[in-house]
Amino acid sequence: MASADHGRNEAAILLANAAFYRAFSQGDHAAMSELWARRAPVTCFHPLAPVLIGRRAVLASWLEILRESPPFELRCDHPVVHVFDGVAVVTCYEGNGDHPAHLAATNVFVLEAGHWRMVHHQAGPLSEPIPRPVPPSAFN
Amino acid sequence: MASADHGRNEAAILLANAAFYRAFSQGDHAAMSELWARRAPVTCFHPLAPVLIGRRAVLASWLEILRESPPFELRCDHPVVHVFDGVAVVTCYEGNGDHPAHLAATNVFVLEAGHWRMVHHQAGPLSEPIPRPVPPSAFN
Repeated sequence: MASADHGRNEAAILLANAAFYRAFSQGDHAAMSELWARRAPVTCFHPLAPVLIGRRAVLASWLEILRESPPFELRCDHPVVHVFDGVAVVTCYEGNGDHPAHLAATNVFVLEAGHWRMVHHQAGPLSEPIPRPVPPSAFN
Repeated sequence: MASADHGRNEAAILLANAAFYRAFSQGDHAAMSELWARRAPVTCFHPLAPVLIGRRAVLASWLEILRESPPFELRCDHPVVHVFDGVAVVTCYEGNGDHPAHLAATNVFVLEAGHWRMVHHQAGPLSEPIPRPVPPSAFN
């Protein structure tokens, strides 16, 4: 894959990844539904929980989570993107608001009808929280 | 993808996935090294730990784990394979010996030089252990 294509892909994948955390933070189930793949098969591990298989089960879980959770910002710190043709694996740390990140996460996306859609998510606890990166504005 | 191709791919991916658990169970670092991708970029989350990025860091972690751990069978229960062209996502539960599974795992493989090689692994705790499936011989 040419370098320019790779850069464009990575930017688009990071946007899709950010859309996932924005949908969570805003309790926006429609946006969450839009983000998950429609045709490709999907799976999801919420923290400490058994696997959910299939779009219906995964989106039902998000409906419950987004209805019951108080709205707070779920951050994605230190995202690392690896692209394998039409599939991308993103690793990151998840943190609430200004708190240190408390979860390790894997997000897998596939290119579906020109959009990067999520096909897998796993989040699990970290033994030691990871401090929030210092935002660039702190250096001003 | 034709159904026969899909079936062959899935069987080959399950073999690669089984090779990962066999390498762990046998403390076989050479087999673990063989399994991880050489050219494709790799990442790994061991339970509760921060991400490891790159083949050197990932294999160094396995050298330490396989040297220090007592040999025991690490099972992969209920593997589910989803194939996206040359990339596969496997979810399963990991358990030690005859104990219930205590970890949820994601394993990602890519087709590299005709072999399914691991490019990502995440294992994290389950709040409730999942009983080992009853082996078919128990019904005899």
